[in-house]
Amino acid sequence: MACAPDPSNNKNSSSILHQQVQKISRIPVSWGAHAWGIGREDPRRAIHALKVGTALTLVSLLYILEPLFKGVGKNAMWAVMTVVVVLEFTAGATICKGLNRGLGTILAGSLAFIIEIVAVRSGKVFRALFVGSSVFLIGFAATYLRFFPSIKKNYDYGVVIFLLTFNLITVSSFRQEDVMPLARDRLSTIAIGCAICLFMSLFVLPNWSGEDLHSSTVHKFEGLARSIEACVTEYFQDQDKDDNIVDKQASRASIHIGYRAVLDSKSSDENLAHYASWEPRHSMQCYSYPWQKYVKLGSVLRHFAYTVAALHGCLESEVQTPPSVRSLFRNPCTRVAQEVVKVLQELAISIRDHHRCAPDVLSDHLHEALQDLNSAIRSQPRLFLGSKHACANNRVLVELNSSKPTATRATLPSFKTDNTSLSERRNTKSDQPPERNERTLRPTLSKIAMTSLEFSEALPFAAFASLLVEMVVRLEMVIEEVKGLEKAANFREFTEHDYLTIDLTSSEKMRNPNGIPLNNHTVSTAAE
Amino acid sequence: MACAPDPSNNKNSSSILHQQVQKISRIPVSWGAHAWGIGREDPRRAIHALKVGTALTLVSLLYILEPLFKGVGKNAMWAVMTVVVVLEFTAGATICKGLNRGLGTILAGSLAFIIEIVAVRSGKVFRALFVGSSVFLIGFAATYLRFFPSIKKNYDYGVVIFLLTFNLITVSSFRQEDVMPLARDRLSTIAIGCAICLFMSLFVLPNWSGEDLHSSTVHKFEGLARSIEACVTEYFQDQDKDDNIVDKQASRASIHIGYRAVLDSKSSDENLAHYASWEPRHSMQCYSYPWQKYVKLGSVLRHFAYTVAALHGCLESEVQTPPSVRSLFRNPCTRVAQEVVKVLQELAISIRDHHRCAPDVLSDHLHEALQDLNSAIRSQPRLFLGSKHACANNRVLVELNSSKPTATRATLPSFKTDNTSLSERRNTKSDQPPERNERTLRPTLSKIAMTSLEFSEALPFAAFASLLVEMVVRLEMVIEEVKGLEKAANFREFTEHDYLTIDLTSSEKMRNPNGIPLNNHTVSTAAE
Repeated sequence: MACAPDPSNNKNSSSILHQQVQKISRIPVSWGAHAWGIGREDPRRAIHALKVGTALTLVSLLYILEPLFKGVGKNAMWAVMTVVVVLEFTAGATICKGLNRGLGTILAGSLAFIIEIVAVRSGKVFRALFVGSSVFLIGFAATYLRFFPSIKKNYDYGVVIFLLTFNLITVSSFRQEDVMPLARDRLSTIAIGCAICLFMSLFVLPNWSGEDLHSSTVHKFEGLARSIEACVTEYFQDQDKDDNIVDKQASRASIHIGYRAVLDSKSSDENLAHYASWEPRHSMQCYSYPWQKYVKLGSVLRHFAYTVAALHGCLESEVQTPPSVRSLFRNPCTRVAQEVVKVLQELAISIRDHHRCAPDVLSDHLHEALQDLNSAIRSQPRLFLGSKHACANNRVLVELNSSKPTATRATLPSFKTDNTSLSERRNTKSDQPPERNERTLRPTLSKIAMTSLEFSEALPFAAFASLLVEMVVRLEMVIEEVKGLEKAANFREFTEHDYLTIDLTSSEKMRNPNGIPLNNHTVSTAAE
Repeated sequence: MACAPDPSNNKNSSSILHQQVQKISRIPVSWGAHAWGIGREDPRRAIHALKVGTALTLVSLLYILEPLFKGVGKNAMWAVMTVVVVLEFTAGATICKGLNRGLGTILAGSLAFIIEIVAVRSGKVFRALFVGSSVFLIGFAATYLRFFPSIKKNYDYGVVIFLLTFNLITVSSFRQEDVMPLARDRLSTIAIGCAICLFMSLFVLPNWSGEDLHSSTVHKFEGLARSIEACVTEYFQDQDKDDNIVDKQASRASIHIGYRAVLDSKSSDENLAHYASWEPRHSMQCYSYPWQKYVKLGSVLRHFAYTVAALHGCLESEVQTPPSVRSLFRNPCTRVAQEVVKVLQELAISIRDHHRCAPDVLSDHLHEALQDLNSAIRSQPRLFLGSKHACANNRVLVELNSSKPTATRATLPSFKTDNTSLSERRNTKSDQPPERNERTLRPTLSKIAMTSLEFSEALPFAAFASLLVEMVVRLEMVIEEVKGLEKAANFREFTEHDYLTIDLTSSEKMRNPNGIPLNNHTVSTAAE
């Protein structure tokens, strides 16, 4: 009976097989969709892949076409290797690698030549010792040199190529009498490879690191503006609890994306600026373009973004000011935030369009908004009393704010609800056995949350308001840095016409959030 | 007269020449000192350089020794190249690159072999077309593949080597009839190179990425603890203005270094964890070591560090609570900070020594300190009134705090001094011509600072206190993550004996601040 085939089992296994086959057959489709998505996110990727394919085919012609092969022979291999290794996504990276490769090869060739002169006059055993020890010494020195920060930053690849070429030539010279042709052929084929790479990356639909850096800087401003806007909206929206949860999650995610992109930008900024400094485009204009200013602006923006992160922390904090108290300050806070957002957007537009920002970009409106926030806080002195007093003082508070009595009355109930739920949480969990280390965390959490909630209710709000004020102060540092950049990069002077531009373009600020321009044509024409 | 040699001029130029010669003669000395410093900072660098030198000499023996050369011949070149390119600083990176290189070569060889089978039966022209188009297609596909995030993260180097090998074999096959020996020789010499690299990096004084990640995590905790300690000390120390300025600058720098190292650690953490996952050391123990948990802990620590950055922002802010007001809260705030610092140090020690942290690491002391801060803030309700009211309420404040009357009395004078100096600054600068855009910034700055200063004096302090509370809440998230790591990494159970260890070692917490252990022997024995 156990051995007899069970028809239902058979049917089951065949259906499982069918499912598996379907799953496997879906793999190419999902991979295709994934590949398509990567290309659609930034079409320059597909173009770059096409360029690499073309460059490789071109360099293969050295082998395939008879007359060319007669010229270079088997050394064409080095040209192929050069194209594979040197052709990078942006022009700056390709130039940097190409020059490093060329320089490394030349230096290594020269050094190997000198060593060859010494080695050629000696006997076989001495020669072996001499070659061995020079390989060891140069290997040690070059590797140690790669730890020097200045070398690591600019010439790391060059040192690797130097070491590679030096070893190849020195070691080959041990078996081959005349090593000069080897060195010469290697150099000439590498030159051919580099020439093809430079041609493809500079003249065929080039991607400029500088442009990427420029547009990522613009996107950072836009992202921060979105973050702040969403953050403040969220902070004062808590009381409508029937709000769409999906919307809320989306807005929380957008807050995070905006400032996180700024906080994580350090290494990519530095790389882009490094490669951009190799690009000839702006250097042709008699002055070297101030890419390092972009890096510095990025660092000031990160400093600004810490405040945005802290503001976001206020949203997610365990310790919360009741919505009713917050709603008292909604208008002045929102106004300050809106003014900050406006300034950030104006800065984004002025950088994007390469014109200087308005001298009064930090407007009087912002000043007024700060004044309003100030008077709003001053008009509620009782709020900053401890929560024990809050009960007694609630009536005074209501009297003070006769315009919003319902909102204020809602304060204490909601505050108490939180309080009760937390103490319930503590009661249910604190009687757990102490040996379960992981589980004992929760009671501690609620203990701290309890302590915190007994603080003055307005304390968290004070932090929020203080961060808003701090943000304005840091915004000024950002503006100062932007003005420095504008001056150093010779942006065109601010004209009244630019006001028009700002009004026209400010509506299209919602662009793709990952900092890569979908269509970099506009940026490129603006910069030329 | 003009042509006559001027003796004083001559003397001058000779002294300038002398200075120049001296300057140049000092260059080797300063370079030597620089090189020595780099080695002293992390002696493993010099060891690594020696290892590379040795590996290169070993691989050169393939050429130099007659019997070995007969075996591999000129293809020994590939072994030399492999050693130069694959031997990296840490074992994980070397394994990752070596396996990528091996895998890429094998795959490319197989594919080239298949194409060779098709191409060998056709005419010369068709063959040229076929080889050209396959080079183009594979070049395009491989380059496009490098943009896939999963490929880019793990197999980027493998794809480059695949492309390189495929092109070399396919293109060579066009001129050479039997391409199999080429493929076989390349593979075998690459295998020899990889073997030498793996031997040097795994068995000769190995550097483990995992260990670096582990100790950098420990250093992050220590750095954060130092930052918080220095930050709070600084915040409550402002009133002693005769303090040593050099000390102050050093302490400010140490604040910055501590949390900045955490904030900037993202990419280095991810790299180290990636390489660590290739290292066999822990995988031999039947479970894969949870390196990704370290990355996650790093991200939670960054989240915590945002609060530290914001706390530091309170120090540097333009808007400051008068020192006299701050001093009222010095003790409770310092106590909370000290408790947080203690917890961070305990976590650092428990991670460093691979034992679990005490279940009550978030101690009752912290709870008490928070309670004290709470009651301190509640006992000063009048402080949170606006500054206009402050004058009238000052007497009440003094009465409320009969224990610290002198400190409170000092409040308003110092506050007013700041105020006056700022308005003076505004007056002197606001009458500048409006066309000097860069200079008009200052008045705006003071305008904002003025507005801010008119806020309730205690608002900035409220932010400071709120950040301290928030920090405690986030500390709990850190502890939760640490416990997750400890469980996943099978750290040994917490015993009473560990308390002893903590007491003994907590005094040696001041280690080199750049996150690289000067002597990693202790870490390595602890992990074995």
